[in-house]
Amino acid sequence: MTTPVSAEQTAREEELIHTVVASFAGTGDARLKLLLEELVRHLHSYVRTVRLTEPEWNAGVDFLTRVGHITTRNRQEFVLLSDVLGVSMQTVAVNNEAVGDATEATVFGPFFVGDAPLIENGGDMSGGAPGEPAWIEGTVRGTDGEPLPGARIEVWEADEEGLYDVQHDDGRVSGRAHLFSDEEGAYRFWGLFPTPYPIPDDGPVGDLLKAAGRSPYRASHLHFMVSAPAHRTLVTHIFVRGDELLTSDSVFGVKDSLVHDWTHHGAGDPTPDGRDLGGTRWARTRFDIVLAPGDALDYGALMQ
Amino acid sequence: MTTPVSAEQTAREEELIHTVVASFAGTGDARLKLLLEELVRHLHSYVRTVRLTEPEWNAGVDFLTRVGHITTRNRQEFVLLSDVLGVSMQTVAVNNEAVGDATEATVFGPFFVGDAPLIENGGDMSGGAPGEPAWIEGTVRGTDGEPLPGARIEVWEADEEGLYDVQHDDGRVSGRAHLFSDEEGAYRFWGLFPTPYPIPDDGPVGDLLKAAGRSPYRASHLHFMVSAPAHRTLVTHIFVRGDELLTSDSVFGVKDSLVHDWTHHGAGDPTPDGRDLGGTRWARTRFDIVLAPGDALDYGALMQ
Repeated sequence: MTTPVSAEQTAREEELIHTVVASFAGTGDARLKLLLEELVRHLHSYVRTVRLTEPEWNAGVDFLTRVGHITTRNRQEFVLLSDVLGVSMQTVAVNNEAVGDATEATVFGPFFVGDAPLIENGGDMSGGAPGEPAWIEGTVRGTDGEPLPGARIEVWEADEEGLYDVQHDDGRVSGRAHLFSDEEGAYRFWGLFPTPYPIPDDGPVGDLLKAAGRSPYRASHLHFMVSAPAHRTLVTHIFVRGDELLTSDSVFGVKDSLVHDWTHHGAGDPTPDGRDLGGTRWARTRFDIVLAPGDALDYGALMQ
Repeated sequence: MTTPVSAEQTAREEELIHTVVASFAGTGDARLKLLLEELVRHLHSYVRTVRLTEPEWNAGVDFLTRVGHITTRNRQEFVLLSDVLGVSMQTVAVNNEAVGDATEATVFGPFFVGDAPLIENGGDMSGGAPGEPAWIEGTVRGTDGEPLPGARIEVWEADEEGLYDVQHDDGRVSGRAHLFSDEEGAYRFWGLFPTPYPIPDDGPVGDLLKAAGRSPYRASHLHFMVSAPAHRTLVTHIFVRGDELLTSDSVFGVKDSLVHDWTHHGAGDPTPDGRDLGGTRWARTRFDIVLAPGDALDYGALMQ
């Protein structure tokens, strides 16, 4: 990068970019044309900036080939790669622009299931999954401060083994549900205090993390997807203040505004709704949600 | 791209880049660290510049997955993708910086074989492959103008069906050879007048070309790899002036300086070396080669 490049050499490199960009002039779809032209500009800028060597180019081809070959219907290594490079999170960022005090979005992740059970407000979404019971409550409002009754709230999380139901091989449905905010825009449910887990690290993306000395672990979190008419659908998590993994989340999903204080309570402490937990300790937190104005997105369709 | 982005939104996007780049601070290999940091900067710049939508991100993941799944030992779709985006050619460019009047390099391609037959200077490299015989001659010199005796010259090309020997399933060896320049640095051999051919276009890269209205055809060419001690190994092609594919070469391998005049001769015209071609027309061209000073690269090792 520090070797000066001659004028003749610079001219050759820039002429090539011009030629390649021009080759996409006939692309029928205007948006695809833009996406391809900018892809060319960015890839060529990368090669020129780092002065990519031919063995490095070969190593890149080999790496992508490994990523492709380990990818199956149940293992999406390209998504993992996008995640650990922060590309997934940057895509979330540009599609969820800051609007007033609207709650920040974070990554969707691969573990959402479209037909999770309906629970009553105040019900239990754990479905028997093992872990410390946790009471989560809050309100759903618009950026104008008005409560949003009937907002659909999807919640899902890993059990205390760090596994989602779909990662067990027994067909169980647990640790996921949907509910609706009440007439005051309030919601409440029993779930589990979140547990950290690693992303799959036995493939090329794991090798990349090892080479960089990075942890494959995600900070402990609980997923939310919240939708209401005329509002931008919010896909986010809540995190746990004090979790030592907050600063090294492998997919860069943590936002300060999404880190919450959780309190822990002894086995004998009375629960918010009088539920008898049978002598186990429990936790609680509050998560007030603010939706930006906009269109509700069909995130379920993104899972196809 | 034309929507203004707020200061708060810009701050969020830039903070994410900072965080992701910082996550590679512990990468043990300094060069790998640079490659990853710049990869992050360029990928995030792309997402931000085009304001990549989530369906587009999904389409990108699906496209790369298809590229991975069609790739086998004998079909490298990631290389094709790099080729049609001009990334392979840009990599060649940055690794073969302009030096005086040194002959320009172009793409290596997937059809080189390391143990091609040795022929005498003036011999025939076609190995019986069908096509119009062509006499190719020239000299090999350094940028100081001094001839380079004993330079190793590898040549390979497709037959008149547009196929290399290795693309036939019968184990034939034809259309490839190596020879050495003589004491005056001169070389000469019989080959075939080059024939155009398409890159494989029945996969995702072919779909991309179709969407862009681009041809999969490569301009007609004959491959050279020329090496001599204390000189940069030259990997290049020669092209044919007047070939209508010169301006639409699917992998951007054409350089003006590599386009040559070929003459065509009748069946009765005497050949340069007196060879009796048995009543067929033939062609000829001249290709004088200038090698830059440098180290001979082991391009064969790149094929592993």
